[in-house]
This record gives sequence, structure tokens and C-alpha cells, in this order.
Amino acid sequence: MNPIKSFASHQEKHPLEPFEIQRRNVGPKDVKIQIEYCGVCHTDLHFVNNDWKITEYPVVPGHEIVGRVTDLGSEVNKFSLGDLAAIGCMINSCGNCKSCMEGMEQYCLNGFTATYNSPTQDYGGRTFGGYSQVIVANESFVLHIPDNLEIQGAAPLLCAGITTYSPLKHWNIGPKMKVGIVGLGGLGHMGVKFAHALGAHTVMITTSPHKAEDAKSLGADDVLISSDANAMKKENGEFDFILNTIPVNHSLDKYLDLLKVDATMCIVGAIEPLDSLNAAQLLFGRKNLSGSIIGGIKETQEMLDFCGTKKIISDVEVININQINEAFKRLVKSDVKYRFVINMNSI
Amino acid sequence: MNPIKSFASHQEKHPLEPFEIQRRNVGPKDVKIQIEYCGVCHTDLHFVNNDWKITEYPVVPGHEIVGRVTDLGSEVNKFSLGDLAAIGCMINSCGNCKSCMEGMEQYCLNGFTATYNSPTQDYGGRTFGGYSQVIVANESFVLHIPDNLEIQGAAPLLCAGITTYSPLKHWNIGPKMKVGIVGLGGLGHMGVKFAHALGAHTVMITTSPHKAEDAKSLGADDVLISSDANAMKKENGEFDFILNTIPVNHSLDKYLDLLKVDATMCIVGAIEPLDSLNAAQLLFGRKNLSGSIIGGIKETQEMLDFCGTKKIISDVEVININQINEAFKRLVKSDVKYRFVINMNSI
Repeated sequence: MNPIKSFASHQEKHPLEPFEIQRRNVGPKDVKIQIEYCGVCHTDLHFVNNDWKITEYPVVPGHEIVGRVTDLGSEVNKFSLGDLAAIGCMINSCGNCKSCMEGMEQYCLNGFTATYNSPTQDYGGRTFGGYSQVIVANESFVLHIPDNLEIQGAAPLLCAGITTYSPLKHWNIGPKMKVGIVGLGGLGHMGVKFAHALGAHTVMITTSPHKAEDAKSLGADDVLISSDANAMKKENGEFDFILNTIPVNHSLDKYLDLLKVDATMCIVGAIEPLDSLNAAQLLFGRKNLSGSIIGGIKETQEMLDFCGTKKIISDVEVININQINEAFKRLVKSDVKYRFVINMNSI
Repeated sequence: MNPIKSFASHQEKHPLEPFEIQRRNVGPKDVKIQIEYCGVCHTDLHFVNNDWKITEYPVVPGHEIVGRVTDLGSEVNKFSLGDLAAIGCMINSCGNCKSCMEGMEQYCLNGFTATYNSPTQDYGGRTFGGYSQVIVANESFVLHIPDNLEIQGAAPLLCAGITTYSPLKHWNIGPKMKVGIVGLGGLGHMGVKFAHALGAHTVMITTSPHKAEDAKSLGADDVLISSDANAMKKENGEFDFILNTIPVNHSLDKYLDLLKVDATMCIVGAIEPLDSLNAAQLLFGRKNLSGSIIGGIKETQEMLDFCGTKKIISDVEVININQINEAFKRLVKSDVKYRFVINMNSI
């Protein structure tokens, strides 16, 4: 399916103009944000295309949102008017389950409310995301952006950033560890930056030899070409952790070979059925295969603060809103270094 | 392939009579064991059939070996003549790698020497297992059997026992945890006994409703019928750990559904390519899929001592050596409760 056609045609069918969808009134604990930039995540394209058969049109994608606070509820105490503010993939969760109580709203046992395409009591019956001019959300799910970060490069931290930071922290990545980042795209380039910043010996694992130089400039200590069987064999059993950012179905076996005894490969890219897995790869070496989605709100703020301290932002290409269909087309071809970000002043 | 034919015909081709294969002379650190009982593991049948394409005929299977010490090297200090002694799946390892240094000889980075079908300097050029009258091995790989255990029931502890005990200990299974054991066979019935003995709320997960009563008599607190979609759905997200003993290719997804956030399913049965795995099952809930083989020597002794304290042995059906081909046939149909053990005095 042509993503451009799909996006345009579905939007046209609905009486609401997607970029003029009203937002709910600002409640006592709500923050209203004038959106300045919004990152373009591959998930946005999956929703536009209804790849996962859960899209309700018209959908307004976008969950890498940065802007400034323009209105506040009376009970808001985390933000002031004019503050830089950000929203990621969630705008609510139950708050009462074990996961929420432990600060892991992303694993809310009752299901978190996604920033777009989630049922809600708001106008329109569901949430609408950041390809828009304003967004209103409870301050609990709104983040602070450190002042020293360029905000267009900070936008992708809200999804690509936390998605890679959270597993690296969960598995205690740090100095004296050898960490592989598989795939150099929106997620992978952030994985390299974070693994490097956390002090690990960071290896970019990619099928594309031409990405070697870029990977090193992003912070990779080494590059391992996964299509080079000899090079891969030499690295068997050498890795303490692998972050797998490949966004599509692929065979896991050759990456599992790279792990040390008891080490883990965490999938953050492919949210789908994978063709095959040889259980022997897990048994011999008691290796672990895991997965992870985004991160909790507290952890997301911690990540943003870490980025402020380490001066980490995403490498982005800023586009105007009328270039979004072209951007989707290029995204499919991985033709972006490494994240499109929409300048919302172009609406 | 008919396992009986296969076993007989391959053995016949070779000039060595398998049950009369000589053993090496007793070296200074060696123990010679007169074998009394040897368990019949599904792995034995895989080797007999050359399912894994690594069998060198004639093969003498058997790695659940118990007997009495009949000869000793001059430097042996762990054993005396007449002691009960046991050998499991390994008879050597490099001793110098990180895994060996940490007591995990089963993950020896240079490959452990298996009790049968492994290259060695011994007579015959490789190791021969426990379907035999004697075995000679370095005392470091020989275990003590607590005196209070019936030895025919203790034999399967050397493989089925340690294979299930080791992961339960590695993942710190204990009271206040809900643990699922998938599959009720040689491994599964030991998994139930150990999980129960470690204090966990133990749930037998099986396709076979008729196994419910047996599972409870083995120590299961509950039985979950995996073919009952409603029953499975009710248990989604309820398990702290699942030990998966299914010995063949199967879909993992419905079992992963049962896990809590951050919980692990460990595969100990199927050492082979599995058809499919939905990565989404791992991502949503940061679940872990792992695998484990047997256990280290120190841990195996710990397991045997634990069995002595808790009076745990396997449920076995004792056969004579001339019944082995019939036993293999029944093993394929899971027609044994729960482990065949060969009385080696029948040779």
C-alpha cells in the first residue's frame, strides 16, 4: 500500500480536518502545549497504513512532541507558562496497578492511554497526537526538556530515545561491558549514543559496510558487519548485551550466537511474529531473549536529564508538514539520518 | 525411523560389542564405577537415531548413572571403595575458562566432554555412556548419592533432576512465587517436585486433563489445561516463572502470555528450531525467554543433597537391558511414568 495515498485518502473521509481537531478544555491538572516540533516515528507510518489493524481514522500520529506551555490548570505544579515541555507515547495510565505503582506505566496492567489512537473521554472519543498545533494532557505525563538541548533534536528522545535508554539502564549497561546495537536507524543511532555515553564498549552491528563511518561518528567503538560470516564468528560469545533495533521480521540466531553465557538480547524494533528461533541458541549458554517498549514517566525524565548532562540529542532532518508524505516514503527506504522532525510552525 | 531398528542395526555394523566396550585404565584421579542403574533420557534416543546428525556409531548412550566404586586412583580423595557414586551428562571440561572457573562446566567455553559420543583420548577415541557395566571418570565429575535415596529413583536426578533444578535455582524460585511447569514427562515431573519443594505455588500446565490427578500427587498445587483457551486467558500475566519441558517444536506465544511483567520462561526440553515467536509477546511486559542445560558439578551435588534432605527421587519404571528397544518405543509415545531406568545387573 502506498503510505502517501493511504494517509491522505483516509483523512479525507472524515469530517474533522485532522490538523484542526479540537483538544479538550484544560482541566485543573492539565497542561496545554503549543507544539513546536514533532518527530516522525516508524510507528506513525504503521498507524497511517493500519498495518496492525487497530487504526481508527482519522488518526493524527505523532508521539515525539516538544513545545511550550501556553495554558495551565489551577492545580498544576510541575510547569509554568512558557516552559519547554514534552510528551511521548503515553498520556495516561491507570495509576493503580503494580506496574504503575512501580513507575512502569508503559507496562500498565490495564493498558496505558497512548498519545494517539487510544480511546478516551475527550472530544472525538480518542486521543490525537502531535502532528498538530496543540495538545492538552495531565501534567503527570508531561516532561521537562533541559534548556541546553536544541528542541528539534530533543523531540525524538521521547520515543526513539527512551526506547533505547530504558533497556540499557534496565540491564545495567556500563563500563567494561561490550554492547552491540543491531540496526542503524532512528532507534539504533540513539542506542549507539546512549551505550557510548553509559561507558560501554559499543559495537554497531549492521548489514551495511557504508554505515561504518557514521556509526563511529555517533560513538561506536567498533563496527561488525553482520553479513560477514567470518567476522561474526570471531565475535561469538563476546557480547554482554545486544540491543536489537531491526524494525522487521528477521532471524535472531546469528545475533544470539554473539552473546556471552547468561547475556541478553533485547528486541525493541520488531513488534511482530518472527520467522524462526533455534531454542538451542538459548539453551547452550543460558542466553536470554527479551523485549522492551519505551519507558516509564520517571525514567523518561531521567533520560532527558541525562541527555541534558551529556548533551545528547537525535540527529534529525527537519521538514515542514507538507513534506510528511514524502518523508514517509523515504522512511520506508531508511533514507533519513536518522529521524524526521516536523516543524509545526509550518502548519 | 524406527528407533529399535536403528539402534540395533547401527550397533551391529561395528566390530565392538557395545556392552563390552573396554574402559580406560584407572588413572591416579579416576574412579571406576560398577554401574547398577542407568536412566533412559530422551537424548539417548536422539543419539541412537542420529536425530542431531552428530552420532558416531557405535554409540553407548546413558548419562544418568549410579553404581558403586570398585577401583580408585592413588590421588582420589572424594571417594572410598564401595561408595555409592553417580555420573551425569559430563565427564570433563577445560577447567580454565570463565564458565568452568565459576562452576558452570555445562557452559564450558571450550565445550565439555559429554558422558557419551564425545571425542576423548580413551580407548575407542570417544566416550561411551552408562548402558554398560562399568565406567571410569575423573573424580571431579563423579557425584555422591545420599544414602537414604533409593538408587534406581536417584539415577534420573543426574539429568532430568539437575536440568529442572538448575533453572529453578538460577531464577531464585521460592515461596510466594507462582511457577508453571509445562509438560509432564521425565523433566516435567521433576520440575513439579522441585518447584513444590522450593516452596513455590506450583502449577502443572498440560494439554492432557487426565494428567491432573498425577500432577497433584507429584506436588502441583493447581493444574492448568493449556488447550482450554478460557482457562489460559484467566491466568494471563499471573506467573513469576515458567519452566517449559516440552521436548519438541511448539508455539511459545500462549505460554509467554501467562508471564508477569519482567518474568521469564525457560526452555529445557526443545533443543531445536521453533516455528514461530511473536516478538510482541516479549516487548509488552519486558518478558524474557531463556534456556538452560543441566547444571554445574557443584550445583549437581547440591541438588543431590537437597534430594536427600527432601527425600526426592524420580518416579521410575525399572527395565532389564533386553527391554531397551521396547522402552524407546514407549518413550516416543510418552508411555512411562516418568522415567525408564535400566537395571544393569541384567546385562
